[in-house]
Amino acid sequence: MSLKNIKAPISSHIKEFEKKFQSSMKSGTPLLNIITKYILKRKGKQIRPMFVFFAADICGKINEKTYRAASLIELLHTATLIHDDVVDDSNERRGFFSLNALWKNKISVLVGDYLLSKGLLLALDNDDFDMLKIVSDSVREMSEGELLQIEKSRSLDISEETYFEIIKKKTASLIRACYACGAKSTEADSSTIQKMKNIGINTGIAFQIKDDLLDFNNSKSSGKPKGMDIK
Amino acid sequence: MSLKNIKAPISSHIKEFEKKFQSSMKSGTPLLNIITKYILKRKGKQIRPMFVFFAADICGKINEKTYRAASLIELLHTATLIHDDVVDDSNERRGFFSLNALWKNKISVLVGDYLLSKGLLLALDNDDFDMLKIVSDSVREMSEGELLQIEKSRSLDISEETYFEIIKKKTASLIRACYACGAKSTEADSSTIQKMKNIGINTGIAFQIKDDLLDFNNSKSSGKPKGMDIK
Repeated sequence: MSLKNIKAPISSHIKEFEKKFQSSMKSGTPLLNIITKYILKRKGKQIRPMFVFFAADICGKINEKTYRAASLIELLHTATLIHDDVVDDSNERRGFFSLNALWKNKISVLVGDYLLSKGLLLALDNDDFDMLKIVSDSVREMSEGELLQIEKSRSLDISEETYFEIIKKKTASLIRACYACGAKSTEADSSTIQKMKNIGINTGIAFQIKDDLLDFNNSKSSGKPKGMDIK
Repeated sequence: MSLKNIKAPISSHIKEFEKKFQSSMKSGTPLLNIITKYILKRKGKQIRPMFVFFAADICGKINEKTYRAASLIELLHTATLIHDDVVDDSNERRGFFSLNALWKNKISVLVGDYLLSKGLLLALDNDDFDMLKIVSDSVREMSEGELLQIEKSRSLDISEETYFEIIKKKTASLIRACYACGAKSTEADSSTIQKMKNIGINTGIAFQIKDDLLDFNNSKSSGKPKGMDIK
């Protein structure tokens, strides 16, 4: 089944979302607008907004709060991707940083921080405190998961249990937040939200396992050095 | 007048604050605890918590919300410093090796993000939404100010007006947040909060002008390469 088919039931919402997402990034600083235009051009598959809309559609009716949830999560995910671009070794040349790489790093970190704050303000200005809490929890878990992975990949003694802890935190926690925020946006009750969270966690785990297997089997398909994530 | 004398009226609060701040950083991830211990060791002058306590003391009685405001702002300021370590590649800060020199860029970005999320959760868990909004506004302005500086320093046509716009955003906005949150923590009325904000803005502007002059006159005193900020 293609992604287009999967998205079909909510395609009109995704189109509407793109407009709202674009305006959520706007700034009075020209350099920022040039960069965010570039970000919007190379937009990804928008898997995370899709999960938000699916969850809301299952639990009730998609509404303005659902759109804000999708924007908040996509702003945050984009900020994380930009911060991920600040990769050390690829920018290094003979042990020194080129001026160009330094500028790039500086701008990347600042743009990431800017998008994070825009997401925060979008939620705060609309009193979406419940969603903000869900999302902040997952930001904390994502950074903890990445740091746990760095720690464990150094000592090379990773158990199956630790592997699952890492992927639950670094990948599944944000997908869990997508489902939880989507459900929350329709005022679903707490037992329904819990069910949605479980779907999100399991989706995230499956996604990461598949990604790691692709990474392990075929370095070309992921575009990364072979076995980097599954050491 | 020495900093110790300036701090004297609130020194017991600063001591109490240090304990609370330390526990606000705690994590279940061992690598994170090693790093945050290191951060706590090289703690700075705690100018920003001091401003929070001063504002609260002027407007009313220092209370638990004041401590949370000070922790929130110091977590955020520390996250920004760590992100700055990535971008400036300055190996030294206050005579200690920066995190970036000891660990790598990736870890710095992740730890910065972790501290940001801990600050968010501290505020959200205690329904400090008003303070969170004040602080998020200043995070947005700080990144806008830094990006504006990058943009303008490239074209070398910076006017006095632009200079003030940059330093208001990149430096004064967080000091403004210190005064506003300190006042807010004592349930001060909005006209009092506005007065406190003005003190914060002017303090921040004065601080940055002095820093830029030191930077321009004497590269040793600031520990940074000469003229970097005032190009």
